[in-house]
Amino acid sequence: MAVSTERIRLTDVARLAGVSVATASKALNGTGRMTLETRQKVKRLADELGFRPNAMARAMISQRSFTVGLLTNDTYGRFSLPLMAGITEALADEGVSVFLCGIEDDAEMARRHVDAMLDKQVDGVICTGKRIDKALPVDLSDLSVPIVYAYTKAPEDAVTLVSDDAQGAREAVRRLIELGRSKLAHVTGPEKFAAAQERAGAFAELAGDDAPILYGEWSEDWGHRAVAELFAENGPQPDGIFCGNDQIARGVIDALRERGIGVPETVSVIGFDNWEIVAGATRPPLTSVDMNLRELGREAGRLIMALSEGKAIEPGLRRMPCQLVVRSSCGGGRTN
Amino acid sequence: MAVSTERIRLTDVARLAGVSVATASKALNGTGRMTLETRQKVKRLADELGFRPNAMARAMISQRSFTVGLLTNDTYGRFSLPLMAGITEALADEGVSVFLCGIEDDAEMARRHVDAMLDKQVDGVICTGKRIDKALPVDLSDLSVPIVYAYTKAPEDAVTLVSDDAQGAREAVRRLIELGRSKLAHVTGPEKFAAAQERAGAFAELAGDDAPILYGEWSEDWGHRAVAELFAENGPQPDGIFCGNDQIARGVIDALRERGIGVPETVSVIGFDNWEIVAGATRPPLTSVDMNLRELGREAGRLIMALSEGKAIEPGLRRMPCQLVVRSSCGGGRTN
Repeated sequence: MAVSTERIRLTDVARLAGVSVATASKALNGTGRMTLETRQKVKRLADELGFRPNAMARAMISQRSFTVGLLTNDTYGRFSLPLMAGITEALADEGVSVFLCGIEDDAEMARRHVDAMLDKQVDGVICTGKRIDKALPVDLSDLSVPIVYAYTKAPEDAVTLVSDDAQGAREAVRRLIELGRSKLAHVTGPEKFAAAQERAGAFAELAGDDAPILYGEWSEDWGHRAVAELFAENGPQPDGIFCGNDQIARGVIDALRERGIGVPETVSVIGFDNWEIVAGATRPPLTSVDMNLRELGREAGRLIMALSEGKAIEPGLRRMPCQLVVRSSCGGGRTN
Repeated sequence: MAVSTERIRLTDVARLAGVSVATASKALNGTGRMTLETRQKVKRLADELGFRPNAMARAMISQRSFTVGLLTNDTYGRFSLPLMAGITEALADEGVSVFLCGIEDDAEMARRHVDAMLDKQVDGVICTGKRIDKALPVDLSDLSVPIVYAYTKAPEDAVTLVSDDAQGAREAVRRLIELGRSKLAHVTGPEKFAAAQERAGAFAELAGDDAPILYGEWSEDWGHRAVAELFAENGPQPDGIFCGNDQIARGVIDALRERGIGVPETVSVIGFDNWEIVAGATRPPLTSVDMNLRELGREAGRLIMALSEGKAIEPGLRRMPCQLVVRSSCGGGRTN
């Protein structure tokens, strides 16, 4: 196959019409001052040559490139995936294309991507990460285009979107209480994570200060070990366990089954993340808190559009609501 | 925070220098014919104004936009993730930015993305999907820019990259045989998938025609049910099980443990995909075939660069080698 790389450029149209590139561009964009004859000649030639109305030429006049840069520290993780889906969805509708810039905690790579984005005159930048308490390894304070931060640490005066983890955790714990569970426990990730603290804070608020909170790792293996602690001879033997993520919940459920403890008959379990691949494969399938990251991404897309159009957007932190997705692991129908 | 959207444009430089946009562009790019004085005046003004050498202006002359479109049908799945990482890695080094175009099996969305990419004059397009036997829902035959297909169905005369699944499967089965396993079985996904057929074909070639092949689903649940079949009273009771993906392998291992059958003491198990989140959480951790999709993505980036630079690339299918990643589930050291 001979792959053709031929392409009709604005310069070709301009040359054949006998005008400058700038004039040709204005003629096609319906702007600038010129005779009607010149304008029509350029348009006719462009049609005949099959010239594609050129985003670059338009951008030189409109001061917008209709591109947005997505700088992400979690390109290949589960948080960015729904975020990216929401962002590109919101922007594709507006004819805006998204540059994918995965930086993976590499300051040098981040700088290279930012330079390339500026060079291409993006209308704005969306920054995303995998932790709300960790900033990207690049200083964007002198960037001349608008920035929206989504699920990553941001400067205080920035436009920032995060999930409302405390609200999500409250919904989970309330559900356990409504199901008649009275001896609750929380098994979660490392205490140093802001997400772990927020979820644990909401748990303590509703379950009481005596309800045990076990900090550990974000892993299935920790879920197993936590069950060994909770159900040791002198352990608290909880009847409802709220877990800090789905992997921990899966470990908890597997460990309970191996001990012959019925889920949800004897113990109700709820996870966090609603990561389908884990929540769906758990036996029984896992009730979990969904952070609605796709909707958060759509909102980030809407905000960067508004900013790039020069609209005034109130800076500060916006918390987007989470939602409890009910499967079988918490039981249902029981009121006591 | 007042977000500034001000930006010095080439038109500003041109206006202040009293030259056309085309002349200003040529002056900055060191091309075109003009007096040294004019060229120096434009450059000096550009410096003073803090004008950023403009990729769009450069592109108008160089016939390259230094952008590539990534059209993917699996934006948010596990195959695209390492692919995207490899692609952006290979291209970022060349100053080329990648437009992320997730189409999710939606022909209308695909058309919209392709239009936006052409409008922005991409230098090339990389197409990726989640199945090597399923084409993207969009006709690209009349595209005027080069295309590289990676892990998706492509026209016969296209430049296409896929993983060599048969080679990967052979490595897995050979390992089981080297470990002294003689009663082998293969548990895999639906027979209609080309990937399932390739892996099963390689299994049969080495394990013999009598070795059972069980087609089902790509799920943990199917792994559980397959073990019930294989270890039924009159079942074949294999001592080595090669699974079509990691989720099936995880189901197989969990089911074997629940039956009190030791892995790897009594049965060796190997998966396919090397999906860390599954392979690492399996008890014991899973030996698995890695398709090296990141390297496949890097190669796709290198190929689209070469094509966009006008280099001759032989069309046809390129199979990239897989690699066996050894963890504990297959055992080791035993020769019989």
